[in-house]
Amino acid sequence: MNRLTKKDIAVLKGLVPEGCLYTGKQISEDYAHDELSAGSYKPQALIKAEDEKQISAVMKYANTRRFPVVARGAGTGLVGGAVALYGGIMIDLSGMDRILELDSENLTVTVQPGVLLMDLQKYADDRELMYPPDPGEKAATVGGNISTNAGGMRAVKYGVTRDYVMGLTVVLPDGEIVEMGGKVAKNSSGYSLMDLFIGSEGTLGIITSAVLRLIPKPASSVSLLIPFPGMETALSLIPRIILSKTDPTAVEYMERDIILMAEAYLGKKFPDSASGCYLLLTFDGQSVAEVETRYEAVADLCLANGATDAWIVDTDERHTSVWGARGAFLEAIKASTPGIDECDVVLPRNKVCDFILYTHELAEELQVRIPYFGHAGDGNLHVYVCRDRMDKERWDEVLAEAFGRMYKKAAEFGGQVSGEHGIGFAKREYLHALLGEAQMRLMRGIKKAFDPNGILNPGKIV
Amino acid sequence: MNRLTKKDIAVLKGLVPEGCLYTGKQISEDYAHDELSAGSYKPQALIKAEDEKQISAVMKYANTRRFPVVARGAGTGLVGGAVALYGGIMIDLSGMDRILELDSENLTVTVQPGVLLMDLQKYADDRELMYPPDPGEKAATVGGNISTNAGGMRAVKYGVTRDYVMGLTVVLPDGEIVEMGGKVAKNSSGYSLMDLFIGSEGTLGIITSAVLRLIPKPASSVSLLIPFPGMETALSLIPRIILSKTDPTAVEYMERDIILMAEAYLGKKFPDSASGCYLLLTFDGQSVAEVETRYEAVADLCLANGATDAWIVDTDERHTSVWGARGAFLEAIKASTPGIDECDVVLPRNKVCDFILYTHELAEELQVRIPYFGHAGDGNLHVYVCRDRMDKERWDEVLAEAFGRMYKKAAEFGGQVSGEHGIGFAKREYLHALLGEAQMRLMRGIKKAFDPNGILNPGKIV
Repeated sequence: MNRLTKKDIAVLKGLVPEGCLYTGKQISEDYAHDELSAGSYKPQALIKAEDEKQISAVMKYANTRRFPVVARGAGTGLVGGAVALYGGIMIDLSGMDRILELDSENLTVTVQPGVLLMDLQKYADDRELMYPPDPGEKAATVGGNISTNAGGMRAVKYGVTRDYVMGLTVVLPDGEIVEMGGKVAKNSSGYSLMDLFIGSEGTLGIITSAVLRLIPKPASSVSLLIPFPGMETALSLIPRIILSKTDPTAVEYMERDIILMAEAYLGKKFPDSASGCYLLLTFDGQSVAEVETRYEAVADLCLANGATDAWIVDTDERHTSVWGARGAFLEAIKASTPGIDECDVVLPRNKVCDFILYTHELAEELQVRIPYFGHAGDGNLHVYVCRDRMDKERWDEVLAEAFGRMYKKAAEFGGQVSGEHGIGFAKREYLHALLGEAQMRLMRGIKKAFDPNGILNPGKIV
Repeated sequence: MNRLTKKDIAVLKGLVPEGCLYTGKQISEDYAHDELSAGSYKPQALIKAEDEKQISAVMKYANTRRFPVVARGAGTGLVGGAVALYGGIMIDLSGMDRILELDSENLTVTVQPGVLLMDLQKYADDRELMYPPDPGEKAATVGGNISTNAGGMRAVKYGVTRDYVMGLTVVLPDGEIVEMGGKVAKNSSGYSLMDLFIGSEGTLGIITSAVLRLIPKPASSVSLLIPFPGMETALSLIPRIILSKTDPTAVEYMERDIILMAEAYLGKKFPDSASGCYLLLTFDGQSVAEVETRYEAVADLCLANGATDAWIVDTDERHTSVWGARGAFLEAIKASTPGIDECDVVLPRNKVCDFILYTHELAEELQVRIPYFGHAGDGNLHVYVCRDRMDKERWDEVLAEAFGRMYKKAAEFGGQVSGEHGIGFAKREYLHALLGEAQMRLMRGIKKAFDPNGILNPGKIV
């Protein structure tokens, strides 16, 4: 990898409109990290891209001169995916935030990568449509969601980002622009390059537009908050709920301590915090009666099996209070301690309880606080190791030990390193350990096929 | 590529149990072609594999000695995907047909690749579960379905095979066995190698087991057969049906001439063949009332917009008569002429009508019969060019002209070469023409990363 010289900066300036390229102190410290990853890494040049032709020209030059190129959206990642580890050029795509087309006959929306998830969701909602993927971070960009194959709350019923990407336009490292997929509902035309790009964290090419699938908006959506005295009782019901033909949209699990943290952080009361733990479920559908039948069946099932109550979240006020708290869990944990790192493990649904029990053991043994919450319906937990009062040396030691052991346990349970946040640089060694050399060799071969000079987001995934 | 010598055959015999290896005339002519592709290509050795260790040992040897290796399931393909173009070794996986595990807590079933689709569907059905992918050819193997990312009737609501594959075990060309994914509902752990295998038609590795996702079986399922006087009226309603919040499972389109062909082929009457064309829709759900509301809404929509009737297919007898005919369309067309080739184009849903009109023009201009039917709800048409009384020379000419022009038109409409049948060798040149050199170069790079010696299914896709 080369470093940019003054001459290179001058050349790059000629490739983009005036005012789009920043260097040195012009680049805000915000670009040197994401929401969670440790360290500070500034690019040498920051380009606020306006269209794919600029990106193509910059990539072509960077490829010839062997400069690192890192794509970045809103910077809300948690694993250092959009951080310029080795300097070079950062391409900020957050300004490419236009919704290019709504095709209401094919139910697709074509967007630039910098469109924010919340803006896309609102755009669809205003038109009686829905973009189903619903990651917790609504201020993330759609490009970032695609690059991490983001999941979110509604994955139980609707699947993840991958399931809604129909087409991608991508700039390859040599500057070539390719279009994959399109407005087609199915495709068996060679290797699915598009599926390879989804979740590739900016290491294979830079996404400049995406065709996304929308669905008609459900006419009714109701949540249930169900308190349980203990974790095992709550979690053991999840496979039965999934089997019960009630088709829940979301099945979240949370415990009292995290609710109290969110209450303190937000300064707002949760409807109930008297119980040890809670399931929070959503049901949606095209008629109120249909949704009612389904949530009542689940409420009955839970009440007959240890639940102490079943709160129907059917007013806007209660909805805001419950889902607002759920959305603030990560921030509340971050605010409770000087440092955290996250384990975004995904497990077979019926192993969630055993895994949480294992984190209890670990917390006890390592004398560290490990709060968690998660998308229990799809087996994806967010587990946080908290620094609290540890000094740097002990913190590094505890972190390494806790993460090493959690991922080892996840592997024993048939789990994977990341359910939805990706690998970036922070989880790379764990990915290698879990997948083994043969799969990593294949991934390196793929990387080489797309990016023979290794300029794109170096140090990530492979 | 080398040819096997007698010594090689002797070595291979030592790697598999007695009676598993066949050569020369011991190999049935059935293995020399699939259901549709032209030509006759016999492998030098046929191995009826019993487990992944045998496959691994054979692959390792073939990789060292550079022999072609072709995996084959039931041989029901339509594009020559499972045909040994260059001789070598064919591995028949149809004997590996065991269902290994049903996990009713995680709603997964683990199967060997030779399990037939119809057996898997029945297995799930008997347990109040459903395996949603529903390709027309029920006697295909699940391994073949995964290798072509098969779609089928229910893709409108439930998606395609890709959406139900959670994990794969694969033997790589060097004999290494790798496990991808697992019983996890979401995954953002590096490049999705699993998604690359899905639809790769045996060119990257040989699938030896798969973890598939099941869903609870719908309590009610009803079809509607809706006659229309003309194609434009019928097809123009499809986007409105999709938008109507009635969530159809299947939306098939068919015309009278094909119904008459099926009646003649089966010797059975279709409930109605007085109209020019028909939409055949299915609705399913967890309550009879819910399903009724939805199909009635669609029936009303159609009747208010040109449909001449709406037949409810709610008895077993009528269901068998309608769906039996639908399932026989391909065979009926094959039986009507000495030769056919198929265009499995997939289009944006709202371009289906224009594409069909184009095939009418083409049929007129080239003086050739081009019947068709299709999964109109997801834009996937099956279009057949029929040889009828043409001599070989004219047939070759007409085929090339018709296919070249149909795929060119499909590309103009934003379509893709194959919706669900794959590329094999028969559609390779059209894939290259549609995707262009940059994407083909990426595919060749991927092929090289997985199979550096190019032994796996040579001459297919890339």
